Amino acid sequence: MSTTPQWIMIGGEGPESYNKNSSYQRRLLEAAKEKMSEAITAKLSLDLISDRFGVADFGCASGPNTFVAVQNIIDAVEDKYRKETGLNPADNIEFQVLFNDFTTNDFNTLFQSLPPGRRYYSSGVPGSFYNRVLPKESFHIGVINYALNFTSKVPEGITDRDSPLWNKDIHCTGFNQAVKKAYLDQYLSDIKNLLDARAEELVPGGLMLLFGSCLQDGVKMSETFMGIVLDIVGASLNDLAQLGLIDQKEVDSFTTPLYFAEEGELRQIIEENGKYTVEAFEDIIQPNGEFPYLDPKILADSFKAIFGAFLSAHFGIDAMRKVFELVEVKAREEFSHIRKANLGMQYLIVLRKN
Amino acid sequence: MSTTPQWIMIGGEGPESYNKNSSYQRRLLEAAKEKMSEAITAKLSLDLISDRFGVADFGCASGPNTFVAVQNIIDAVEDKYRKETGLNPADNIEFQVLFNDFTTNDFNTLFQSLPPGRRYYSSGVPGSFYNRVLPKESFHIGVINYALNFTSKVPEGITDRDSPLWNKDIHCTGFNQAVKKAYLDQYLSDIKNLLDARAEELVPGGLMLLFGSCLQDGVKMSETFMGIVLDIVGASLNDLAQLGLIDQKEVDSFTTPLYFAEEGELRQIIEENGKYTVEAFEDIIQPNGEFPYLDPKILADSFKAIFGAFLSAHFGIDAMRKVFELVEVKAREEFSHIRKANLGMQYLIVLRKN
Repeated sequence: MSTTPQWIMIGGEGPESYNKNSSYQRRLLEAAKEKMSEAITAKLSLDLISDRFGVADFGCASGPNTFVAVQNIIDAVEDKYRKETGLNPADNIEFQVLFNDFTTNDFNTLFQSLPPGRRYYSSGVPGSFYNRVLPKESFHIGVINYALNFTSKVPEGITDRDSPLWNKDIHCTGFNQAVKKAYLDQYLSDIKNLLDARAEELVPGGLMLLFGSCLQDGVKMSETFMGIVLDIVGASLNDLAQLGLIDQKEVDSFTTPLYFAEEGELRQIIEENGKYTVEAFEDIIQPNGEFPYLDPKILADSFKAIFGAFLSAHFGIDAMRKVFELVEVKAREEFSHIRKANLGMQYLIVLRKN
Repeated sequence: MSTTPQWIMIGGEGPESYNKNSSYQRRLLEAAKEKMSEAITAKLSLDLISDRFGVADFGCASGPNTFVAVQNIIDAVEDKYRKETGLNPADNIEFQVLFNDFTTNDFNTLFQSLPPGRRYYSSGVPGSFYNRVLPKESFHIGVINYALNFTSKVPEGITDRDSPLWNKDIHCTGFNQAVKKAYLDQYLSDIKNLLDARAEELVPGGLMLLFGSCLQDGVKMSETFMGIVLDIVGASLNDLAQLGLIDQKEVDSFTTPLYFAEEGELRQIIEENGKYTVEAFEDIIQPNGEFPYLDPKILADSFKAIFGAFLSAHFGIDAMRKVFELVEVKAREEFSHIRKANLGMQYLIVLRKN
């Protein structure tokens, strides 16, 4: 398997597109905006806000969420500068936004949908964010939005029925300790590479803002909302195989590179890396907050938007559509269970480069 | 008309593609390589070659010529550094290449064809090079390959039969003084904008390397090889209109944004701009050199590769193909005339930012 994640979201604006179904992520970004502004106000040194200010989004996809995220950062930096210097940022600071994603990302769409009237220079930076993609000290604030919930690849042996590491589920449930260790080892290696690369590319004192989901310590993936729905996706794939519509062997060896670390694992990786100071590690949406996916149809559509392209690539678009029809039915049946699931933690981690 | 030049070359690797027919431009780049190395050795200050070194190609298209051009520049910078310091550049310098072209350029193809094993970081920079596209002091050497032979748009009135500026030819022949003045005014404005923008983006002492074609002073475009062949293209379009295959009015109002300045005009624009020192202004292929387009078929194919997409966009692909069949026939008839045409000057201009 290549080191490029296969999670290419469905592009464009069609009914199955990620854009049309990402209202939950947009709402998270809204919720995150205030926390992020606070972090920038409190943790970014005014000295760093000078003539050129670089903002980088790693895993930007082809828009439009990246434009919201980088504009929020720029707004916060400008606000801080205006308040603390009394000067107009537009007179003194040139912003540059570096949009990073894999070489196979649709940069053409990204570039052609850049917001009119933006006050920043734009660059596209192709390459895996697990490696260096920019020269030293290229940017002042970097952001990663929900891209740390994947490993760079499915670990060795996981998809092989004859391996002791074989995972019969379509994701790491956390119940099989050998499977869990293989995913965690891959995750540790990936995040170390990512933190090392960004530490070189960040100016000293610069900030990394990491948004994502993690598990409360001791919670298994399969006890969470995401885990339960993915198990429903897996069950639906098995149903299609039973009906002879897809190959059972294909289903058996189908596993995602999805991995939700526990909060403690994530803290430990960052602390052991040693190149950053953890300035904040916050849950940005409280568990008692309004739960977004209250309707089985919306739930099925949302998961189709996120995982549909991946399933299509393996099983074909017709099978993928049937899977999510089944997911909606099953989600309706299990809805009281789903509603009570652990929501995990939607984190904002603010790291300052030492 | 938009400010985006409509000269989108035919992409890919098919028989009509620019890539398959650009051997002449590649040979020019080869011829240019030695001159460019000399210029970098002599004119680039060693002080500028430090930990990060930026190279920018403005009008990069989707490759592959841009990769050759930027690698030649990097090789020359590394050679100079190695010779003058005795140090290994790989130990001390990080190169970053900034690939600029219009937002509608195919950056996906560019990124996916980046040379394996390259020793530089890559960024795509979308936007018109007549405007600012990068923050101040972003790069050390910029290159523009044969992109200054176009104006940013066809000047007002040129395509309007009722205008005193109406140009019945498909390019500025130079014989109609009103047409020539309109093109020159547009050209002066464009090049001033371009030089002003790059002066901000270049580090002080940084170099701009301009490759292109210009006319010897007093020579008309229609006395040159390029001009004669474009007149043949125009005559072929008129033949198709006579046959009723395309609309005569469309042909009458069809004009390119192609403009070849005289050497003196180009020198004057740069001197009046005042932001650069002209370090070199050389003819890189001598007029008595071997003439590349000796065969009418190759000639027709080469012009189809360069202008075919533009003609297709106006007249359709079938008409475009018929045009170049006619061009081959006419080129064969007029071949003795074409062979004696003025070749113009293939220049390398080296500018150092003051």
